Amino acid sequence: MMNKKYLITGINGFVGKYFVDVVRANESNVDIMGLGLEEKTKVKNIKYKSVNLCDADKVYDVIAKYKPDYIVHLAAISSVAKSWEDPAGCFLNNNSTFLNLAEAVRKLGLKTRILSVGSSEEYGPYKKILKEDLDLHPTNPYSVARVSQEYMSKLYVDKFGLDIVMTRSFNHIGPGQNTQFVIPSFINQLIKISSGEIENKFMVGNIDVIRDFTDVRDVVDAYYKILTMAPNRSVYNVCSGKGVKLRDIINSTSKQLGIKPNIYIDPTRIRPNDVKMVIGDNTKLKKELGWKIRYKLDETIADMIDYIKTR
Amino acid sequence: MMNKKYLITGINGFVGKYFVDVVRANESNVDIMGLGLEEKTKVKNIKYKSVNLCDADKVYDVIAKYKPDYIVHLAAISSVAKSWEDPAGCFLNNNSTFLNLAEAVRKLGLKTRILSVGSSEEYGPYKKILKEDLDLHPTNPYSVARVSQEYMSKLYVDKFGLDIVMTRSFNHIGPGQNTQFVIPSFINQLIKISSGEIENKFMVGNIDVIRDFTDVRDVVDAYYKILTMAPNRSVYNVCSGKGVKLRDIINSTSKQLGIKPNIYIDPTRIRPNDVKMVIGDNTKLKKELGWKIRYKLDETIADMIDYIKTR
Repeated sequence: MMNKKYLITGINGFVGKYFVDVVRANESNVDIMGLGLEEKTKVKNIKYKSVNLCDADKVYDVIAKYKPDYIVHLAAISSVAKSWEDPAGCFLNNNSTFLNLAEAVRKLGLKTRILSVGSSEEYGPYKKILKEDLDLHPTNPYSVARVSQEYMSKLYVDKFGLDIVMTRSFNHIGPGQNTQFVIPSFINQLIKISSGEIENKFMVGNIDVIRDFTDVRDVVDAYYKILTMAPNRSVYNVCSGKGVKLRDIINSTSKQLGIKPNIYIDPTRIRPNDVKMVIGDNTKLKKELGWKIRYKLDETIADMIDYIKTR
Repeated sequence: MMNKKYLITGINGFVGKYFVDVVRANESNVDIMGLGLEEKTKVKNIKYKSVNLCDADKVYDVIAKYKPDYIVHLAAISSVAKSWEDPAGCFLNNNSTFLNLAEAVRKLGLKTRILSVGSSEEYGPYKKILKEDLDLHPTNPYSVARVSQEYMSKLYVDKFGLDIVMTRSFNHIGPGQNTQFVIPSFINQLIKISSGEIENKFMVGNIDVIRDFTDVRDVVDAYYKILTMAPNRSVYNVCSGKGVKLRDIINSTSKQLGIKPNIYIDPTRIRPNDVKMVIGDNTKLKKELGWKIRYKLDETIADMIDYIKTR
């Protein structure tokens, strides 16, 4: 039997290398190609191509040649803040990268299964636990793009028989995440406070908002299960199902570091439209695909502290 | 006082010249610029520029120079059938043309009001009268693009203070409509049968589907009212509020032509997924903006017969 071939876009992002890990842990013989904008990749023992996914012809050529069994589409401009800086660019970029992949598979008549990664942002401002059957009310350019991507995915399945499975992924955290994101940024600052590198003055915004965090290693395990086991056209929340305050993460980190940070609320960091609570329901993922959470929040934080300290 | 300046995209399409007519009927001194892909326009006494709206820089330059008070965005790939032939192209084209206009207005800090034309297709397959407050469930690439356009419009208003009013326009018909569309195509064939140019054998698909048709002259009257009177960020159905079977239109046309067509159902023309009934509620447009229907269906058909006969 031929080795299964995985094509992973956005391989140089936070999630890419972890997805490679989960594939290797589950399959002994496997063929992996990563795509990224950078000239080279740091992910080991994979094929790599530097490709701008907005270039439909290049995407077509890569897929025509490689003929992947699976496409894991991780590439995206996934920052809500950035999507406000360049709404049209973010919207068009996210949609065209996905559509170029889907069109290539369609035009080539391949049986490739595509994992289309979406976002909890698609739901918009609900005041309840977010379940997959809720209507979507996106409130920023990034999430409008994700909703379109999901709609278009379903049309490609229904009309052209493509094989596409979808996620609505909630916040994920873990070692290696860029310190521009809120949790690694907090941990980084708290480490610097503990080492005396900066004074004990911890400036924050609203740390009482509740979010749903999943360890990136559990996230890729979910992605692998969805990719290899889920029915065509299905959509899964990928989330812990638990609400955690940013304050709780600060407390856990501080305890592990043995410090007591002096917390100051910086009013300029309070975003008035921040949704108070974002918690997902992960029943579908657990029941249908047997997914389980393996990393407790404290362990994830411990690993993130280790990772940042050793840099 | 300076003349009001109207920028009309897609000026060479079916609706363009009618919109110019309604502006001229309502305002004595007015400045109109049309944009189209063609080298020249047939619309008289307006400024005209040949511009591909997908070219963000060109769109920016036109708007920077002209500084319109109003943008009427009629340009679109608006055929559902064509959107299935090139899903990615239709989706990206429709969104990028709109976004390039909105971005130019945003970056230039203009007070321009934009009319964003949407579609009844945005609703998807409901079994009831379509009202503006229903959730949207688009089921083809064209309508997914329209839904995105509407979401993005609202974000531009909420976040950047742009002034955008929106429609969900139902089927419109009238003299000058391309005979590729179903109603002019029917009328054209029936005229040929009545003149003996073709034999009396009228091949149709499912002519018992119910649709909501509005005369294009009533449509542009609605657009003008929405553009000049509606509150920012509002969305209006533009429709007659009445359901008509395609069969009724064949009957009215035949009666006016004094013929009895022999109708044959061609099973290959039956589209299994055709929604049985699409009827809109136009209460909001009538109550809030005082819009009234002036053209009865029989009059519209008479005018369409005249138009086609004189060609």
